[in-house]
Amino acid sequence: MFESAEIGHEIDKSTFEEEYAKLRTELLEAQFDLIESGTFPVIILAAGMEGAGVIDALTNAHTVLDSRHVVTHATDAPTREETERPRMWRFWRTLPPKGEIGIYVGAWYTTPLIGRILGKTGSADFDRQMQSIKRLENMLATEGALILKFWFHLDKKKQKKRLQKLEESERTKWRIEESPLGGSKHYEEVKSAAEQMMQITGTDQAPWIPVNATNKHYKSLVVMRTILDAIQARLAEPPAEQPVPAPVRVPDIDGKTLLSTLDLSHKLEKESYKKQLEKYQDRLNELVWDKKFRKHSVVLVFEGNDAAGKGGAIRRVIQFLDPRRYRVNQYAAPTEEERAQPYLWRFWRRIPQNGHVGIFDRSWYGRVLVERVEKFCSEADWRRAYGEINDFEAEMSQAGIVVIKFWLAIDKDEQELRFKAREETGYKRYKITDEDWRNREKWDEYTEAVCDMIDYTSTSIAPWTIVEANDKYYARIKVLKTICQQIAKRLK
Amino acid sequence: MFESAEIGHEIDKSTFEEEYAKLRTELLEAQFDLIESGTFPVIILAAGMEGAGVIDALTNAHTVLDSRHVVTHATDAPTREETERPRMWRFWRTLPPKGEIGIYVGAWYTTPLIGRILGKTGSADFDRQMQSIKRLENMLATEGALILKFWFHLDKKKQKKRLQKLEESERTKWRIEESPLGGSKHYEEVKSAAEQMMQITGTDQAPWIPVNATNKHYKSLVVMRTILDAIQARLAEPPAEQPVPAPVRVPDIDGKTLLSTLDLSHKLEKESYKKQLEKYQDRLNELVWDKKFRKHSVVLVFEGNDAAGKGGAIRRVIQFLDPRRYRVNQYAAPTEEERAQPYLWRFWRRIPQNGHVGIFDRSWYGRVLVERVEKFCSEADWRRAYGEINDFEAEMSQAGIVVIKFWLAIDKDEQELRFKAREETGYKRYKITDEDWRNREKWDEYTEAVCDMIDYTSTSIAPWTIVEANDKYYARIKVLKTICQQIAKRLK
Repeated sequence: MFESAEIGHEIDKSTFEEEYAKLRTELLEAQFDLIESGTFPVIILAAGMEGAGVIDALTNAHTVLDSRHVVTHATDAPTREETERPRMWRFWRTLPPKGEIGIYVGAWYTTPLIGRILGKTGSADFDRQMQSIKRLENMLATEGALILKFWFHLDKKKQKKRLQKLEESERTKWRIEESPLGGSKHYEEVKSAAEQMMQITGTDQAPWIPVNATNKHYKSLVVMRTILDAIQARLAEPPAEQPVPAPVRVPDIDGKTLLSTLDLSHKLEKESYKKQLEKYQDRLNELVWDKKFRKHSVVLVFEGNDAAGKGGAIRRVIQFLDPRRYRVNQYAAPTEEERAQPYLWRFWRRIPQNGHVGIFDRSWYGRVLVERVEKFCSEADWRRAYGEINDFEAEMSQAGIVVIKFWLAIDKDEQELRFKAREETGYKRYKITDEDWRNREKWDEYTEAVCDMIDYTSTSIAPWTIVEANDKYYARIKVLKTICQQIAKRLK
Repeated sequence: MFESAEIGHEIDKSTFEEEYAKLRTELLEAQFDLIESGTFPVIILAAGMEGAGVIDALTNAHTVLDSRHVVTHATDAPTREETERPRMWRFWRTLPPKGEIGIYVGAWYTTPLIGRILGKTGSADFDRQMQSIKRLENMLATEGALILKFWFHLDKKKQKKRLQKLEESERTKWRIEESPLGGSKHYEEVKSAAEQMMQITGTDQAPWIPVNATNKHYKSLVVMRTILDAIQARLAEPPAEQPVPAPVRVPDIDGKTLLSTLDLSHKLEKESYKKQLEKYQDRLNELVWDKKFRKHSVVLVFEGNDAAGKGGAIRRVIQFLDPRRYRVNQYAAPTEEERAQPYLWRFWRRIPQNGHVGIFDRSWYGRVLVERVEKFCSEADWRRAYGEINDFEAEMSQAGIVVIKFWLAIDKDEQELRFKAREETGYKRYKITDEDWRNREKWDEYTEAVCDMIDYTSTSIAPWTIVEANDKYYARIKVLKTICQQIAKRLK
């Protein structure tokens, strides 16, 4: 994998200066075009052998760019805010919006690489981490990001020499002393981990570019030229849409579906409702104040037919919770800032920190429900979203978050009754619009989308609970009871 | 993942018979069209919960098809021939050629699933196995195969009832007794392993179809209808070609490449050559007769410029080897039988069994060399081949095979001298054709393909050795010495 990257390249100063002068102008112009077009973000990621001078290699490129539209991010130790959330949260926070350039040193590769090199992570676990990074980058790329990843390489001899030099100077020897990789002692481990990393995560969408790092002029020119070519190519030609093969589905033999076989006649009497409500609200409060909950948090997803009673159910959940401990996030059409980012971005930002409850009144499932049915995104987009959502929830679950998802189901007649009642009740009239009636016309399409969503995204770590919601009392208790059970199970 | 597959479907006998009569004719007709078109093979794979009646579900479909063009393969314990080769070898042997249908029960999923369910395989290792299956199936699909995978599902209660019934009958109780999964005791483990399996390997190219298995009529109809629809859809419309994004490469700053920086002046005197030849041939013999070698085998790949001396080097390798222990495989254009299979098929068949040496005079690298340069395959085909080849070699390496690869490099002048000498030497004239001269005109394109090949496929488990071959003595000794070193390293 590193054969060509072990060939030395001697670029002398005058050749460099000549090339640099040319590249400088072209790169800045390309950046202006990028900003003006505002159609995609550029993510530049760099890593490499110790002593390869990763930062040095990037400095020229960063310097010539318009600094208002480029940020270089080091991967320092995470802040408390960051450690209390899934490990990718800190990177999502800093993703460049469309038109901007983000330069990352190490980024999401740093922790897995160090773990593997020091032998704390086994080969299979490292493989899994790399697969998960591959899917993340693939998603960012499919959402439009131009991703370039540089690996600055040194052969063993050159590295040894380089590190000696760094150690001899008072000004630079801290770089070796503070290195988590212990200098050149782990050369073979670094090379082999990097090989595995490149084999898995080096894709057409997010390629690795291995660069020989012995000559500073050479590596600087390679970086500038690669970025320039890639931006120009992308501006000239947007990526082709991947054709979507027709999905294979279980053929419909008898018309029975997940929703059609639901028993919506479940009911609860008022007395029984009140008793149980109190019981589960108390229980929930207890759980949230449990000492063990300090290392967890809860994400509650509420989806359902229009007028199925999401709002009412949410109110019963939060009624006696400490308002500092929860946040209700409601989602409608994305804002301009949100549209400049991948679709999951606006949900990533609202992931609760440890000890908190994040409530999502509508959620990332909009992608495979309203966006699918109303054709706000392409078929390829919503089809790939099932996997992306499963990854997103797995990421949360690994970080200790209990993900609980509800589909509140009512039938078509019940919906009509509720719509009409809303129109007639003064303070509820704002809740019913023409759009609600229009959505209702697409009942069957939504039903199909809901069945697909549940089949593809109900997983053991983040299962869907279908709530029979024709009776509001029954529905609210089922919601509260499920929340208590699932939190308790996780805290055990 | 199994929500819809847990809904029961009651299909009565008369409904079944009516549907079956229709499907029977249509399926047979579709198969005739498939045979006539001869454009793709159909791979049907089935697995499921114990007691789900996987075989029963397939029987009707198999019975109605023309039996000369469909084979159902059980996954029995492997034969000795099979255990002495990489685990996928037995499946490659039985892959249906274009126009034919192969039905597999369990197949490549059986061993990983059992390992995971019984807790012998950790989650990360299972993940890795599934990723590798995903890549395999993806490759088969991209090479044209239509792949359908059925998962026959039972919920926990239904399974318990079913297994009890099987145990009560003398005729069927062996099924439970001999089951590697121990009946219903592992229900949750099976479900969770199946979920992980479906999340990773359920792709557009090779989808999983979860089928409720409680009603025998229902599952039979689902299988027949799914196969019918998929064959008809594929016959009507071949899969769209995926667009290939322009690759990002290290920009050329100073014209230096892997081959241009090679020192071809290495030489060896005749006396020294003879001595070393004897030494390494003896050593090789020793290694091949080493007791430890019985659990290994060797694959030698010889690629190189025309007239670089591959044949001569191979002769020196085999000169004193026991002819029962090696086989030289030479590859030219594929035969008709080979063209009806994925391109790697003709190499898989020749993988040596334990204790043997398989020599490949040209190899699977034809895909990224001659097929790339001469445009015998599409750019998408050779670009994805790097990863497929790495997987293929990893599979061999895991099975104990030492994979050693040589690129014999000569320069353009040396090649001209050798071509002319061949034309003038009577018994060597058959070795030089117009095609050789034509290939020579594409020297630069071949050079680029060789550099890419080495960069993408030289891995720590199967590294390339570049042999400076302007001097034949030097080249042959480097080849023999490398073989001895790499076998010795592996046997240690």
